[in-house]
Amino acid sequence: MPNSEPASLLELFNSIATQGELVRSLKAGNASKDEIDSAVKMLVSLKMSYKAAAGEDYKADCPPGNPAPTSNHGPDATEAEEDFVDPWTVQTSSAKGIDYDKLIVRFGSSKIDKELINRIERATGQRPHHFLRRGIFFSHRDMNQVLDAYENKKPFYLYTGRGPSSEAMHVGHLIPFIFTKWLQDVFNVPLVIQMTDDEKYLWKDLTLDQAYSYAVENAKDIIACGFDINKTFIFSDLDYMGMSSGFYKNVVKIQKHVTFNQVKGIFGFTDSDCIGKISFPAIQAAPSFSNSFPQIFRDRTDIQCLIPCAIDQDPYFRMTRDVAPRIGYPKPALLHSTFFPALQGAQTKMSASDPNSSIFLTDTAKQIKTKDDDKLEQIRKDYTSGAMLTGELKKALIEVLQPLIAEHQARRKEVTDEIVKEFMTPRKLSFDFQ
Amino acid sequence: MPNSEPASLLELFNSIATQGELVRSLKAGNASKDEIDSAVKMLVSLKMSYKAAAGEDYKADCPPGNPAPTSNHGPDATEAEEDFVDPWTVQTSSAKGIDYDKLIVRFGSSKIDKELINRIERATGQRPHHFLRRGIFFSHRDMNQVLDAYENKKPFYLYTGRGPSSEAMHVGHLIPFIFTKWLQDVFNVPLVIQMTDDEKYLWKDLTLDQAYSYAVENAKDIIACGFDINKTFIFSDLDYMGMSSGFYKNVVKIQKHVTFNQVKGIFGFTDSDCIGKISFPAIQAAPSFSNSFPQIFRDRTDIQCLIPCAIDQDPYFRMTRDVAPRIGYPKPALLHSTFFPALQGAQTKMSASDPNSSIFLTDTAKQIKTKDDDKLEQIRKDYTSGAMLTGELKKALIEVLQPLIAEHQARRKEVTDEIVKEFMTPRKLSFDFQ
Repeated sequence: MPNSEPASLLELFNSIATQGELVRSLKAGNASKDEIDSAVKMLVSLKMSYKAAAGEDYKADCPPGNPAPTSNHGPDATEAEEDFVDPWTVQTSSAKGIDYDKLIVRFGSSKIDKELINRIERATGQRPHHFLRRGIFFSHRDMNQVLDAYENKKPFYLYTGRGPSSEAMHVGHLIPFIFTKWLQDVFNVPLVIQMTDDEKYLWKDLTLDQAYSYAVENAKDIIACGFDINKTFIFSDLDYMGMSSGFYKNVVKIQKHVTFNQVKGIFGFTDSDCIGKISFPAIQAAPSFSNSFPQIFRDRTDIQCLIPCAIDQDPYFRMTRDVAPRIGYPKPALLHSTFFPALQGAQTKMSASDPNSSIFLTDTAKQIKTKDDDKLEQIRKDYTSGAMLTGELKKALIEVLQPLIAEHQARRKEVTDEIVKEFMTPRKLSFDFQ
Repeated sequence: MPNSEPASLLELFNSIATQGELVRSLKAGNASKDEIDSAVKMLVSLKMSYKAAAGEDYKADCPPGNPAPTSNHGPDATEAEEDFVDPWTVQTSSAKGIDYDKLIVRFGSSKIDKELINRIERATGQRPHHFLRRGIFFSHRDMNQVLDAYENKKPFYLYTGRGPSSEAMHVGHLIPFIFTKWLQDVFNVPLVIQMTDDEKYLWKDLTLDQAYSYAVENAKDIIACGFDINKTFIFSDLDYMGMSSGFYKNVVKIQKHVTFNQVKGIFGFTDSDCIGKISFPAIQAAPSFSNSFPQIFRDRTDIQCLIPCAIDQDPYFRMTRDVAPRIGYPKPALLHSTFFPALQGAQTKMSASDPNSSIFLTDTAKQIKTKDDDKLEQIRKDYTSGAMLTGELKKALIEVLQPLIAEHQARRKEVTDEIVKEFMTPRKLSFDFQ
């Protein structure tokens, strides 16, 4: 699978680890001198590339990138200048919020620039979604590859997800779904939505039944965003694992190719973490591969996946992209969004687990679309200059949000248990993959 | 669930770890002083019991019992006097073989004594199997509890398994199956047989398809032992995980309650092991709980499980028994067999992975039963006194084995793909659980 972007530091790190293992096993297994020499040469060259990119020597126990905090997932005191972003913690010391440009450099992803946005417009014949125009989706991996395939009439599919930690979802949670619905509409592709109720059971003080019931409740909010039932499959991990002939097989394949050292480096796990947490990243990785869904894609393994998600989920997919070529699958492409800032300020994100940080209202794209870019620009100017006061700004926000909430709640009420059940039934979607 | 035997050192160790976590969370969570005091009192008392039993203080990072070797699963040079037994390695420096009495003490299990054998005879009304009479099954956990339940007309079920590492099985592999068939016959209970093809994929250089095909081939040898198709369910993990509404849920439950520290202590895993190996013990544990098989037991969680297996599998079930009460399930009971000595001598066991160590022939109980205990005793006397020579002994063995092989092979030939498929289809068994 060609990869149009430079390898991330983590991918390089992992390649060195793999190559090192290969050299050791060749030496142990009486391989020919030529074979060993050539593997060693490759190893040395990888280490040189790593040093050039990282600015320091490769150290086996010290993976690069997002530094894992040693305790409670908070940032180190000595790293006060660094933003901290992983699937459980988003924190910065800067009142301006996370520096997303720095994050792109640190994660090794690519910026969504004007050129890419124009290309999406040309490919789809649709005006780019305002989340693209306004930089809410700001970073990507391999989106050009997806567009190449699309322009050559090759299929792809969308994958996004939700960790159902409570019954209620907040506005921030809907960002990826609103955008994903737009992608589904303009590209006309199938979509799978993973509800990681197993993850929430493992991380929170919940029973299996509670976690599953949150998955179903959250599915209603997601469905209320307007997804096409004929092109969308929503699944609870706890349920679907026992219903799919492909999902567990991919989970085991991924689990064979990721060591504890690696998840320790990527996610900051420790020896005191339960083995469920340690192996969970494979469960979030598996839907990136089309044969996890035999009811939709049969045994096709070559259909590329595009994942729209908030940037804090990227560690899962850096790991996935590292494993993919080693198990013969294409790497998933990604589109990353910023976070929805918490009500207390931009230092952290809205979190369902902290009720004070979030507006627990939800809505889809329709009305947001009617606010036009010029009006927002005027507000920005007026507020910056002082012509508009904070109280007036809040009032304007409330005027936008209140009808949004009311409409979303109305649409959510229409989502019956039968509709949820159909969305969550493994089935053929109306899309033909040859 | 009452436990009729004293807690093993490992169970005590794990209880201390759990209690310590409880104390910490009470302190963090603003619990009342009384609550905290009482939890601390319990912790101190557990630590005192541990010191009394272990002869040394409890140390959080130093689990007791079967010492995990630091590398390659071989015994330490400094432990030349100790037998080493875990699921991957059986080794002793003594030419007499493993000291099974010592193993009982070290593992904290109970000896199968004359009294227990007599009780089995009374309960079933059948002459005890010669594997019991001759000490091939020599150790147990909670077998008296199973008999209590049986005498009170309460149901139980049998669970055993096989790691399909190659197409061929050897005589040693059949020991648990021959005995399990007898248990199924005399107690008239359902039986589940796990084929851990996922384990073999993770540990060996195999593809998923190879591992699965070995599971099916091995199932034929197992079926040829004569199991009742109406009371027996054989399953491949790779297959059944995607077919059961209960299996994965129990796997996740177990995975939430076992830390990496614990599996490191029990199985000797290291940071370089893949996350699949690290989480696998939960997959072997889950069939110990009846609601992993909703097609057989519906949602019943209280049906006790009895596991006949070779003693090297005990670490999995010590872990399972530690977790069971914490997730509200009964502890599985166990019956442990010795190993079949390798052809090179009694220092290690027959291993399918070492072709020189094993006789790759198989057979079931029928003809073995016809050799009566007195004749074996005569051979023992003659060979010990020198009246019988080694050549003659070998000749006698060959005369027993050759027809056994031939008969087994004949029965195996009769096992059609359709029969295997039926054994491996999740279905109701002919046994009524209210």
